[in-house]
Amino acid sequence: MKKNYEYLCALRKAMKEHGIDVCIISGTDPHQSEIPPHHWRGREWLTGFESSNGTNGTAVVSQDKALCWTDSRYFLQATEQLKDTGFSMMPEDGPEAVDLIDWVTENTPAGKTVGIDGMTFSVAYVQRLEQELNDNGIKLDTDFPQFDYIYADRPARPLNKLFVHDEKLVGATVDEKMSAIMETVKGELANAVLLSSLDDIAWATNLRTANDISYSPMFVAFLYIDNDIRVLFVDDEKLTPEVREHLAHYNVRTLPYDAVKDFVSKLPKETRLLLDPQKTARGIYDHVDCTAVFGGAPLAKLKSIKNDTMVASIRTAMKKDGVALTKFFMMVEKEYPSGELTELNLTQRLREIRLSDETCVDESFGGIVGWNGHGAIVHYEATPDTSSAITGDGLLLVDSGGQYVNGTTDITRTVALGTPTAEQRHDFTLVMKGHIALATAIFPAGTTGHQLDVLARQFLWKEGKAYYHGTGHGVGFFINCHEGPQNFRLNINPTPLEPGMLTSDEPGLYLENRYGIRCENLILCEHAMTTEFGQFLKFEPLTLFPFDRRLFDKSIMTPEEIKWVDDYHALVRDTLLPLLDAEQAEWMKEKTMPL
Amino acid sequence: MKKNYEYLCALRKAMKEHGIDVCIISGTDPHQSEIPPHHWRGREWLTGFESSNGTNGTAVVSQDKALCWTDSRYFLQATEQLKDTGFSMMPEDGPEAVDLIDWVTENTPAGKTVGIDGMTFSVAYVQRLEQELNDNGIKLDTDFPQFDYIYADRPARPLNKLFVHDEKLVGATVDEKMSAIMETVKGELANAVLLSSLDDIAWATNLRTANDISYSPMFVAFLYIDNDIRVLFVDDEKLTPEVREHLAHYNVRTLPYDAVKDFVSKLPKETRLLLDPQKTARGIYDHVDCTAVFGGAPLAKLKSIKNDTMVASIRTAMKKDGVALTKFFMMVEKEYPSGELTELNLTQRLREIRLSDETCVDESFGGIVGWNGHGAIVHYEATPDTSSAITGDGLLLVDSGGQYVNGTTDITRTVALGTPTAEQRHDFTLVMKGHIALATAIFPAGTTGHQLDVLARQFLWKEGKAYYHGTGHGVGFFINCHEGPQNFRLNINPTPLEPGMLTSDEPGLYLENRYGIRCENLILCEHAMTTEFGQFLKFEPLTLFPFDRRLFDKSIMTPEEIKWVDDYHALVRDTLLPLLDAEQAEWMKEKTMPL
Repeated sequence: MKKNYEYLCALRKAMKEHGIDVCIISGTDPHQSEIPPHHWRGREWLTGFESSNGTNGTAVVSQDKALCWTDSRYFLQATEQLKDTGFSMMPEDGPEAVDLIDWVTENTPAGKTVGIDGMTFSVAYVQRLEQELNDNGIKLDTDFPQFDYIYADRPARPLNKLFVHDEKLVGATVDEKMSAIMETVKGELANAVLLSSLDDIAWATNLRTANDISYSPMFVAFLYIDNDIRVLFVDDEKLTPEVREHLAHYNVRTLPYDAVKDFVSKLPKETRLLLDPQKTARGIYDHVDCTAVFGGAPLAKLKSIKNDTMVASIRTAMKKDGVALTKFFMMVEKEYPSGELTELNLTQRLREIRLSDETCVDESFGGIVGWNGHGAIVHYEATPDTSSAITGDGLLLVDSGGQYVNGTTDITRTVALGTPTAEQRHDFTLVMKGHIALATAIFPAGTTGHQLDVLARQFLWKEGKAYYHGTGHGVGFFINCHEGPQNFRLNINPTPLEPGMLTSDEPGLYLENRYGIRCENLILCEHAMTTEFGQFLKFEPLTLFPFDRRLFDKSIMTPEEIKWVDDYHALVRDTLLPLLDAEQAEWMKEKTMPL
Repeated sequence: MKKNYEYLCALRKAMKEHGIDVCIISGTDPHQSEIPPHHWRGREWLTGFESSNGTNGTAVVSQDKALCWTDSRYFLQATEQLKDTGFSMMPEDGPEAVDLIDWVTENTPAGKTVGIDGMTFSVAYVQRLEQELNDNGIKLDTDFPQFDYIYADRPARPLNKLFVHDEKLVGATVDEKMSAIMETVKGELANAVLLSSLDDIAWATNLRTANDISYSPMFVAFLYIDNDIRVLFVDDEKLTPEVREHLAHYNVRTLPYDAVKDFVSKLPKETRLLLDPQKTARGIYDHVDCTAVFGGAPLAKLKSIKNDTMVASIRTAMKKDGVALTKFFMMVEKEYPSGELTELNLTQRLREIRLSDETCVDESFGGIVGWNGHGAIVHYEATPDTSSAITGDGLLLVDSGGQYVNGTTDITRTVALGTPTAEQRHDFTLVMKGHIALATAIFPAGTTGHQLDVLARQFLWKEGKAYYHGTGHGVGFFINCHEGPQNFRLNINPTPLEPGMLTSDEPGLYLENRYGIRCENLILCEHAMTTEFGQFLKFEPLTLFPFDRRLFDKSIMTPEEIKWVDDYHALVRDTLLPLLDAEQAEWMKEKTMPL
């Protein structure tokens, strides 16, 4: 057996000591982060199953069972990694899916006690859990912080220093943002708010850090705001003199991170505290003694609208990213004939090139470099075991992005190495026709992303082809690469698109074991015109890098589509040329010639 | 004061006698019909406000107030008609909208009693009413059939004779349909069902009538089905020997229409009776003593899938309709120069031409004939007061349909008389591009109408133009012209499109006081192909009549769009020619020449 089995035995002992019959172990943190810091990756440590971002697994342990739920992307990996740990894999989705809460309810006798660490589960999740357990006479203990008892060498909370996000780039002061928050709070009939979501807190404070959370410059904290006071709960070690001054300037007090529970327990009775049940830990809610008001992500909308200053900053980030990609793809073309390129070394080289710009704090997600068949795996991540050598003819799919202080980027290009087939060019062009149809859409104010999504799929569908992911996600401003509330999906999303929203446009096509195609720009929603029929909106692509001219099949394109590509390429060229050296400029001119 | 004021005084007297302080009066019948028979149009009789189909008005009467709610289409008309009746108009929608239930709740003191005729309000409506009243200490009496006390010369229930819908045309026997219903009922965990909706009952029994309900061959009845018995509650006068034999053949007992309440009150305790809360009268539910299972329109899905026999029948209906429209539009062209055509006489002539085919039982809705500015009023209905003379240059919009025993038709054509302007041709072509984009869509099984809707709007939107109605509605089979559950709308509708569903494709454009354009075919959903990405579906237009060639602007059409029009016109010509006389054939050949 692996070491994990010892940990499992220790957990079972601790459960007995604390009167817990069944323990559910979360994969996330008190902020419901998508990629939690290592301090909160106890579930990985316990089970040995390491999903790429840490959250994709929830474990259940009783004295005779030890299970770990995960989704279909990880079935094979989890089964392999859970071997000899005492744990077995349980499917969260797919045809064999088992609902975790149903399973726990059905497999726990009445009168027994289920224990969880309430700090790592959301109010909403526990609400359903508690209801089902209560209906079946099972008790719930939300104060069983299991790793406090068994995880001796647990990593500390991240103590990275914060820095101020230059308000010249942001175009909105902390005062302005917090006033906007309080307006939203009042709209929800509350008079105070506790923010748990790290993106909301980074946005509201104009503070960032590196490395608390992989691929996002957010930092670990809570933020309380009411009409009189503003309190940031944050580890003291993270504060620099500059940050203290910034906070003092905006009347933001600081208290230790751990003081948040005590603080909410002592709020005046007349406080009506807005909490997002999806984002607030049950362990905090358990301490709230005033009136709690549950409201849906009150800040999502505020964060999603980029002001003119932010848009100007993002344009700067896009130029830097375009230069980085120019260097990268020139290198790929030059070194490809050597036969020594691999998915893994390209992933690493791309990261190095981006981070060589000092304003790029991190990648905005783990880069995806997929050659031929690997490009057809939507969430592919090259590892030493899987990394292909990039030789012969084929398609290279590269999806990556940077966290620049000027903004967050996310771009996918699919390029041909060697000679592309007619089928590859045909499929690439179908994907681009969808990309262009969405990018050039004009639509009445009030239109939602799910109403436009089909524009990007229609040409593939006509030939019986399809992709199963969303066409686009919202993008944050130097915060999260995936940040709603708006998106382009077939699934229903009631959020109307508004001027200032930045969203990806990334249709694709994936032919198993053959090749993958995805073409992604970030597009900004803008005013288009006002007519007797009301206001109409449009998009502007902000991403600046050419699509591979060799992959277009003009015979299935309309003159308007060809013109769109040529115009976009001219824009890319004219914008990037001043930033390129002579050799790069020559390369760029060739890549952006009219089709 | 008008006579209506006497009726109002009589109602107030009856309310006093029965201890009712506030009375709410429905505009519909025990079947929640869209167009109720005159027997149930007491609200019209009482208030004097007559909306086109009768349902668009709900009245509220207390000892000192008398109000009638209606929607924005009728604000002017209702205000006019309510003069000197004692009633005032209340807006149901628009910026000044007042919620009727909220108004009643706020304007009735606690302890007082609100009275309704429970037979004319749905379970779902009364659920909300009762909740709000109870929350405010107001009583509800659901057994106050106000018109029994005051409406002496009330029209009788319609007693039109039923006839059997030839099962050779239907392709499904009553046994097959009732088995399918019971399968659906079991899926809802019930073991019996009471159908109140007249379209469901017509569908399930393969029976029809003329004139119970305007524009639809449905008849007034209730239908009960369980595993052992089938009971049709229907006035005996409606039954012919042939119909009795048909019912007996399928073991359907008949009971008097009024026996339904007593029947449901005596159902065995173990009955789990499926009721659609949107369609079942509260007055019936009040008598249910067994377990009620509320389920959404259990039959809507069954009715919406047309089998091969039905589709063959519908093709026949479409041929007849194409011939009728050929006669109509030839007449329009011939008589237009005389200057004597009017909207009203054309509406009447079109009806006569359609009904001259003996298999056409009725129009499928009140024909819309709108010349220029009137074409821009979406629900326009020519009256002696409004009817325009059709002279000069312009666009004529004609939206109409027939109830053939072979199926229900619904078609809109917009034609130029005199010389169309370049702008009219441009706008018409934009509308047609949307029509074609939807008609030629191919999409994965599971796709819904709201996911495709934008295809029909995209070209108008690009120019800042829009229409505000749905792009298409489901169509029944010799039942309702508007019959879901599927449709094409921007609004969310979770119903996936399935092979056998018949839906209209009718984008439009309306320029106030200038002209209206709408282009409508009925399109049938069919299997397209199965690929490695699953099953894909497509549409086939079943409607057979040319679009006006003079209104196409080829300069903004793709070669594929032009080919679609030419191919469709060739299909129309080749299908209709054998049914036309020599002169008609010449006309048709000219109208269907390639663009």
